[in-house]
Amino acid sequence: MSNSSRIAVDAMGGDKGLDVMLAGVAAARRRFDGMQFLLVGDEAQIRAGLEAHPNLTQHSEIVHAPEVVGGAEKPSQAIRRAKTTSMGVAIDMVKQGRAGAAVSCGNTGALMAMAKLALRMLPGIDRPALAALLPTLGENDVVVLDLGANTEVDARNLVQFAVMGAAYARTTLDLGRPRVALLNIGSEDQKGTEEIRDAAAALRAADHLPLDFTGFIEGDQLARGNVDVIVCDGFSGNIALKTAEGTARFVADLLKRAFSSSVRSKIGFLISKPATELLRDHLDPNNHNGAVFLGLNGLVVKSHGGANERGVATAIGAAAKMVRDDLTRRISEDLGNFEAKAA
Amino acid sequence: MSNSSRIAVDAMGGDKGLDVMLAGVAAARRRFDGMQFLLVGDEAQIRAGLEAHPNLTQHSEIVHAPEVVGGAEKPSQAIRRAKTTSMGVAIDMVKQGRAGAAVSCGNTGALMAMAKLALRMLPGIDRPALAALLPTLGENDVVVLDLGANTEVDARNLVQFAVMGAAYARTTLDLGRPRVALLNIGSEDQKGTEEIRDAAAALRAADHLPLDFTGFIEGDQLARGNVDVIVCDGFSGNIALKTAEGTARFVADLLKRAFSSSVRSKIGFLISKPATELLRDHLDPNNHNGAVFLGLNGLVVKSHGGANERGVATAIGAAAKMVRDDLTRRISEDLGNFEAKAA
Repeated sequence: MSNSSRIAVDAMGGDKGLDVMLAGVAAARRRFDGMQFLLVGDEAQIRAGLEAHPNLTQHSEIVHAPEVVGGAEKPSQAIRRAKTTSMGVAIDMVKQGRAGAAVSCGNTGALMAMAKLALRMLPGIDRPALAALLPTLGENDVVVLDLGANTEVDARNLVQFAVMGAAYARTTLDLGRPRVALLNIGSEDQKGTEEIRDAAAALRAADHLPLDFTGFIEGDQLARGNVDVIVCDGFSGNIALKTAEGTARFVADLLKRAFSSSVRSKIGFLISKPATELLRDHLDPNNHNGAVFLGLNGLVVKSHGGANERGVATAIGAAAKMVRDDLTRRISEDLGNFEAKAA
Repeated sequence: MSNSSRIAVDAMGGDKGLDVMLAGVAAARRRFDGMQFLLVGDEAQIRAGLEAHPNLTQHSEIVHAPEVVGGAEKPSQAIRRAKTTSMGVAIDMVKQGRAGAAVSCGNTGALMAMAKLALRMLPGIDRPALAALLPTLGENDVVVLDLGANTEVDARNLVQFAVMGAAYARTTLDLGRPRVALLNIGSEDQKGTEEIRDAAAALRAADHLPLDFTGFIEGDQLARGNVDVIVCDGFSGNIALKTAEGTARFVADLLKRAFSSSVRSKIGFLISKPATELLRDHLDPNNHNGAVFLGLNGLVVKSHGGANERGVATAIGAAAKMVRDDLTRRISEDLGNFEAKAA
């Protein structure tokens, strides 16, 4: 078994504690064949936690790291502790080639800063972008980036995000020429910030790219499935992602209220329970967990801080698929072609 | 009947045409007592359209305006046609004191530019903000601003939006000290842009304001009902609003799919239909229509471009409530107190 099929897991970084992390890793082990793990964190605690998962023990190795990055810790502070924290050491496993990807539920800013410092950017990329697959009404999920790695961006960053997002969609969704749109507050040419308009002009002119640039898209089209990649700055992307999650939960809560509003609707609910459970499954963020920092020389996957066992397993599964798809090499190739043709 | 209880309606500005606008006005007339209308637009077309609404005729007056602002027209271009377009003339009715508020379904940018030029800003306000009430799981709706009037803002703008949003919540939700939060991509102090962090510092220090500043809020908390006013720049606000609308529709579509996935769930759906209709009603944007430009010397209400008859009636009802609440004077008083105490 090659080192690249091993996933390094920051076992200490989740809001729900080590036991949920280990249960998630064990679930991933059962769900996906042939996975091996490096469990990074406090060795004694991990060893004790593993007693509940005898099947996991033989497929994993503990890598000791005495410290944990705090949820509110500044990235600039966290990177000084890269060599002693579970997050930093997990990333280092990727750098050393001992793992194909690192997965962490910890502090996003610290994760990005550490990953950038340890793994460095791919040639031609100025900044990494956090990308995730979101469910749509269409046949495929949609790739959305940046989801919070870069609060402010320029046109050049947005164009790079578009190329990386398209490469991700080409790889993971198996699409030849993904349809790429820029998130904006209107579909007309003069709408939005100067950066967005400049990025649109650059993408419209770049017909050598393996993507179809479809122009601007508004927030209400995120889940329609009429594009494959949605590009935005990290601030609006994060707002959009969290608003979508919050609204889905809001609607589910309203639905629960509506269903318990009368005896009649309670009966209807019981009968249609399989349908509403299907819906709940489809909307549960734990079933769409695992965002990746694109643009790095190696795979680092960010899981929701509050992910449950299933969420952790989903993020690990996503990381394993990226390793299997050789995502970093594929993106790097697309970028190389882009640069070569643009030159 | 005073002039202020009259609403000037841009009859030509909606995507769905004059007939839907007139049907909406007629529905508002039936729904709310004692309303009078100035119907602004092409006189011959409006007169012909009114034949279908004999009850509306006696409560309305036609004000002729030969031109219409285009949906993609640049604001800088539209303002040159302020005196001849239905949008411009509707706003002018407010300026002249012939109407208490103007309602338009047209181009947001043009509406703001024309309104700003004709009505001017309230003292102490640099820019208007588009504010709307959104449904929550709590007791009250939440005021969200800016929803798209200002693509880029500074800290000073955000603080002014907070004061105006609080004044709106004090008036329309009848709250003494509204809870005000800034929309951000994390709740920790160091998160977000410099503008947001500076605005937070200013709001934290301003304990003379009639509001409780609760710090940062993330996109997933929009509909939770744990704050009364959410402040953001117009770009993220627009993305959040549209993402919320799109996600609600996405979930409703998934629900429909789930309910038709088997005979069992179809039966469940039929039985629980009143419950799901309640939900649909609660989520339909036409039932929450009517955003207002705060900070102007007069009331201008923006309706969804694609509003149906019910949506137009809702926006007109919202405008009538603002007139009745004397919203502009109340905001102006709050701003005056703010300035006086800050001095």
